[in-house]
Order: sequence, then C-alpha cells, then structure tokens
Amino acid sequence: MTKDLLTRRARLLGPNMATFYDDPVHIVRGQGVWLWDADGRRYLDCYNNVPHVGHCHPRVVEAIATQAATLNTHTRYVHEGIVDYAERLVATFSGGLETVIMVCTGSEANDIALRMGQAVTGKTGIIATDNTYHGNTHLVSQLSTRKPPIGGHAPNVIRVPSPDSLRPLGGSAEGQAQVFAGHVAGAIARLEAEGHGFSSLILCPFFANEGFPDLAPGFLDPVANVVKKGGGLLIADEVQPGFGRLGGHFWGHRRIGVQPDVVTMGKPMGNGHPVAAVVARSNVTAAFREAFGYFNTFGGNPVSCAAAMAVMDVLEEEGLVQNARDVGAYALERMRALRHPLIGDVRGAGLFLGMEFVGDELEPQPDFTAHVVEAMKARGILLNRLGRHGNCLKIRPPMPFSRGNADMLVETLAEVLAEMPR
Amino acid sequence: MTKDLLTRRARLLGPNMATFYDDPVHIVRGQGVWLWDADGRRYLDCYNNVPHVGHCHPRVVEAIATQAATLNTHTRYVHEGIVDYAERLVATFSGGLETVIMVCTGSEANDIALRMGQAVTGKTGIIATDNTYHGNTHLVSQLSTRKPPIGGHAPNVIRVPSPDSLRPLGGSAEGQAQVFAGHVAGAIARLEAEGHGFSSLILCPFFANEGFPDLAPGFLDPVANVVKKGGGLLIADEVQPGFGRLGGHFWGHRRIGVQPDVVTMGKPMGNGHPVAAVVARSNVTAAFREAFGYFNTFGGNPVSCAAAMAVMDVLEEEGLVQNARDVGAYALERMRALRHPLIGDVRGAGLFLGMEFVGDELEPQPDFTAHVVEAMKARGILLNRLGRHGNCLKIRPPMPFSRGNADMLVETLAEVLAEMPR
Repeated sequence: MTKDLLTRRARLLGPNMATFYDDPVHIVRGQGVWLWDADGRRYLDCYNNVPHVGHCHPRVVEAIATQAATLNTHTRYVHEGIVDYAERLVATFSGGLETVIMVCTGSEANDIALRMGQAVTGKTGIIATDNTYHGNTHLVSQLSTRKPPIGGHAPNVIRVPSPDSLRPLGGSAEGQAQVFAGHVAGAIARLEAEGHGFSSLILCPFFANEGFPDLAPGFLDPVANVVKKGGGLLIADEVQPGFGRLGGHFWGHRRIGVQPDVVTMGKPMGNGHPVAAVVARSNVTAAFREAFGYFNTFGGNPVSCAAAMAVMDVLEEEGLVQNARDVGAYALERMRALRHPLIGDVRGAGLFLGMEFVGDELEPQPDFTAHVVEAMKARGILLNRLGRHGNCLKIRPPMPFSRGNADMLVETLAEVLAEMPR
Repeated sequence: MTKDLLTRRARLLGPNMATFYDDPVHIVRGQGVWLWDADGRRYLDCYNNVPHVGHCHPRVVEAIATQAATLNTHTRYVHEGIVDYAERLVATFSGGLETVIMVCTGSEANDIALRMGQAVTGKTGIIATDNTYHGNTHLVSQLSTRKPPIGGHAPNVIRVPSPDSLRPLGGSAEGQAQVFAGHVAGAIARLEAEGHGFSSLILCPFFANEGFPDLAPGFLDPVANVVKKGGGLLIADEVQPGFGRLGGHFWGHRRIGVQPDVVTMGKPMGNGHPVAAVVARSNVTAAFREAFGYFNTFGGNPVSCAAAMAVMDVLEEEGLVQNARDVGAYALERMRALRHPLIGDVRGAGLFLGMEFVGDELEPQPDFTAHVVEAMKARGILLNRLGRHGNCLKIRPPMPFSRGNADMLVETLAEVLAEMPR
C-alpha cells in the first residue's frame, strides 16, 4: 500500500519530490512525542519542531475546531483574536519590538523582514550567512546556498562566512566574534561601494542550519555594532530557535544577548497550523506598510490566532520552556558520555541538540552521519542531520520531550554507535 | 468596546493597517452567507470568496478538527492526504496539467509559477497586465500597481494594458483581443532585446482586478499563440475565478477557452484554511524542483488537504457550481433592470458580479461607488469596489448564495441608488 502511494505521489507531486530516509516512512497518526506509521509501528519523534507542544495537542485542536466553527475571515474586518494574540506575543519581547504583522509561513515573514530593511533605509543591500536557509520565496531563496537562482545570484545579496564550533572563523574561538563582525563590515562596504547600500543583516541567532556552533553570550555584540553603524537593520530569524526551544529563554536572541530590530517566526507558532509573524518596532512596521501596502488574506485570521494563542497557553501551563532546559541539559549530558572515535563534538541548547562526526583531522563524516540517521530510524527513532557538511545529528523534538524519552534516544544512539564501524 | 479594540489594533498591528469601510465592522460570527458583528447585527456577505462553501461550513470544520486531532505533519513523510487531494484536483484539469505543488497562500503559488517559467525557459522576463494584483511576496508584488518597490521596478517585468469593457483596447470590442496580443508581442520583443528573454505571461483569465470586462470565449486565443511562439509559459492565476466561482465552469480559463501551462489557486481552496497550490505539467514541476529544491513546511500537510478535500465534497454534493450559474444569472438579470444615470455597465459571470458607474462621457465615478458601498453596508450588505478606477461594485459572495439572498442584495441596491444624487 505504501509502495502504491509512493508511485501515485511521484506521478502527482512530481518525480523529484523529496522524502526523508532511504525507505520513506508513511506516517498516519501522531500524539505528543510519538508518531505511528501505516503498519502500526511507533516512532519517537526527535525531529519535528512544528508540533511544538506535541503532536495533536488537544488544547490546540480544540481551539482550532471551536474558532473554525465560529468565524474565520480576514483582518480588514476588526477582530479581537489578532489583537489579543499580538498583545500576548509582544509581551515576550523588549527593546521596543511592539508591533506584529501576521502571515502564514516563515518564508512570508522573512520576505517582509527583508523589505522592512529596504523600506526603512531606502537601500537594497542584504547580508546573510553562507550556509543558511530562510525560506522559499524568490527573494528569501536568494539567501540560500541550495541552488543558485535562474539568472544568477542577485547582486544586492552578499553571504558572509558563518561561525563554526570545530573550525572557528580566524582559527580561534576567542577571536571568532570579531572576525565574523569584520566579514559583515566588509560586506557593508562592498554593498555601499557597488551602489546598493546596506539595508539589513539577517541571521538565525542560534545559527541552526550552520550546525548551531557553541557561542557565548555577547558573541553577536560586535556584529550588532557594525550593523548599527552601517545604518541597517538586524533581523533575527527565530523560526527554529524561538518559542522557548532553547530552554530558559523564549527567544534565541535573548539567549545570546542581542537586540534585533526585527524578529521573524513561523514553524512552531501554531503547532502545525500555517501561521507566522514579523515583530518589529512601530516605525519599522509603519514604514513597511507605507512602502508596500501589504495585505495577507489568510494572515492573522481568527483560527490562526486561536491556534497560536493555544500554543502560548500550553507552553505556560505545562512549563515547557523549563522542560526544554531541564530535559535538554539531561540529554546533552548523557550524549556527552557516549563514546565513538568519530564523535567530534556534542552540543546544543534546550531541545535543539546535535553531535558532530569528524575524522582525526576534523574531516567531516556525512556518510557516517547518514548511516546513523537511517539506523536510528530502523530502531524507531526519527531524527536527521544538518550543518555545512551534513555531518551533525539534528535532534529537535516536540517540547514535551521527557527524561524517559531522552533515555530512549540516548540508549538507542549508544546501540547504533556500538554497531557502526570504528 | 470596538473603539478600544481599534486603538489596540493600531498600536499592535501598526498605525496604518487598513480596514474596510469608514466605520469598520467588528465581525464575531459567521454562518453560510451571513456574518454577525459584536452588537449582534447581521450582514449579508456579498464580498467574501474565501469562505467559498459558506462561512464555517460544518463539513469543512469537521474535516479540519478530525485531521488536526489525528496527524498534522510535513510532506517529507509520505501521507495519503496530499496524494488523494492532488488526484482529485488534477481530475478537474485537461491539457496535461497533472502535477501539483501545495503551498499556503496564493502569493506563494504565484511566486512559484513565475519561477517555473524561469526554470523551463532559462530566461527571466515576466509579463503581467497593468492593473493587476497577484500577491504580496517581493517577486509577485513587482506585478502590482499598488506601490513601486524600493529600488524601483525590476527591469525584467513588463506590464501591458489590460482589456476593458467600456474602454476597449484599440477602441473597439472586436479588435481588442488582437490589440491585447499585440501589446504582449511587443513586450516579448522588448524583453528579448534587453537581454532578459521571455519566461512567462501571468494573468487572471477573468481579469478580476481589472474590473472583469465582458470577453467572449476565444478572446485569449491570439495572446496564447503569441506566448507559445515566444517560447514562454502562460500562467493562469485562478485565485479569484477558480473552484466554480464563475458558474458552469470549474476554472476561469475553461470559461474563456484557453489552455494555460501553469494554473495557480488559493483563497477559496480550503474555505479559509491557509492552503494554495500550483498545478502544472509534470515536466514543468520537475524542472522547477530541479532548479530550486523547493520545500514548503506547512504546504500540503494533512489538515490543509482535509480542508481542501471537504471543499471539493461540498461543492459537488450541494451542486454549488450550478448554483453559482443559476443564481448569478438571476442576480445579473435583476441588476440589469436597475436604473440610475451613472450606471454604465452591469456585468459578471456566476457569483462574481459588478456594476460600473460612469458619467456621460464615461468618466469613472469612484466617489459615487464608494458611497454606494458605504450605504449598502449601513443597510447590512457587505460588498466592495474594484477596477482600474475603483468605480465597479465587487459582488463575490460565498457560493451557497441563494435567489432569496440575490433579491435582498438587488432590492437594497435599488433603495440605495434611489437615494443617491442623480
């Protein structure tokens, strides 16, 4: 049945529509941190950050169902749902980040954030890191390293080397922050010289796709100064680290101690319901609206807001940000006790954890990592890999992940590593 | 209470977040073709095409609630929801349009469609009509006439004059199709001469935002030939006319009798749930995925597909496409019997109707039209205006709109026109 489904899928969705795993999983049901396939096999979900408060959380389902039965229309009529949610959301920020534009996807949010930089500065130059992913629109995909766009990369976009744990910029962990800021300063100078001018630097404050290097609080201070001096906006893409994922801090930029001008968010915001947002200072939002006359039909509709509000409720009531800190620290400690000659580093924060596999001379081991991912899946644990070299395990489970779940994860990982060639 | 809400709204969503109507409505509940405000006042909804099968249709609500309680994850796992829906959707098309990319908004769909043209042709030039709106991403908003983008209009986008009912291109309704095709041919030549090359022409086959001029079947044949000869793709944006809105035909391009290479859809697809799609030939979809490595986290998730499938079920079981034809024809006939010296034209198809207000010399009457919109709202009828000059009433109700609803609409319109200055 799954094979027939794969054939129909390739015919209807295109022959090159990607799946995870050599032998894709056919998932039919989810609850909390668990997923079940069509054969009734249960998987521990150590990958999905979208079902943030747990797959099919009854509180979120109920909120969606009740609001969908009551009203679901657009924001050119006045409704309390978006206003109440926006109030709740901006209360999690400081530094004057007090207005919200609600959209449907993180890509839409980043597409707006970049144009906010342009609207405020009147300039077009954009800087991003060089192994990142901020989404899939034409503009935002210019920042990705996946494929060069048809017609070539846009001349107003410069990508700078991003920080790394095992191979720090400039060769030393201590100097990395200054070297990173130096690259950004150089890019600003180039954008100015080439006539684009500098509008914004966008980055994930956890550098998730780069392999989330260990960076001390204050790491982004030098680059924030460079951005400020250059007259542009600092955009924090919180699509991955946001909503308490990193434990203890509600936002990734808080953890590293930097004040962005614009923050974008998406994936976990509605526990799977397509809702995303841009949070910015009032003058930035107003300048963007003035320049672009933006409207988003589905953005901020009452059902999206009800889903997003329920996620906030559950995070608070179930203490999930604290849980991410506690269980994340516990899992990290247990992972650090694992032994295999290719383990180069074990790192992460809250419930975003990884393990980097390298050889004696730090040679990345992507194939080994891929084998570990497949072997974990074969044992009922879903996770994946990321990083510049594809050699880091990506462990990013739903937030109700427990110590017992962490034990299962780590013990299975120990079994898999024991069976891998040394 | 609504006033306090407006104050909070302006503070939290930005001071220049638009609303409909001089005195905005605060809607709290919807059912079928009806909306209720916070004071319990009932409005007949003659505007919203998003709640396509009626506000809060129980069948769609149930589908969303059930699937949200079962599983809601992404398409890198295999799931029957997207495959079953894609199969159902492509069955409504001909001409080899047999693959689907599912996304969250019409803007995302058009952003992809334009890049499909670029991926297939290896060229970047885009042609659109000159009073259109295809969405809000950076790329797609280049096609809009709302505001010029920061940094100026992209050089690879050319906008051509669009057809008109009262002021046909070239001065005669008979010659308009050839004149329109001639403008497109000229734009292709210019894009080629300027080195961009021609990748696609995008248009709404009903020219909804242009004021949906009356155009005979075959009108788009000359332009389709020009596009084909130019080696580009013809993209039909069905966000407004699609899903049976025009009555009798499921898609706007079928009604006018043209075969597009790519079709985009959005608003009505999930009755308010954020779901949208691009339908194209298999080779076009594959070329796009090959060129861009596209993935959309929320796109095609099981809940979106359940909502979209329920919309298809209801359309069929309640005979709503036929209803749109019948009631639309009835409403149009009654509207044509109304008398006021400024009525220049009454036109439309299915449940997408309008009335254009002009003076003796065809001078557009946008202020008069705005007054009619406000007066209708004051009498409990929600509609709006559109067109190049903002002088056409826009009547586009949910599809279960009945003859009784049409009577209420037309009789109220008669009252309003009787009271307007002559």
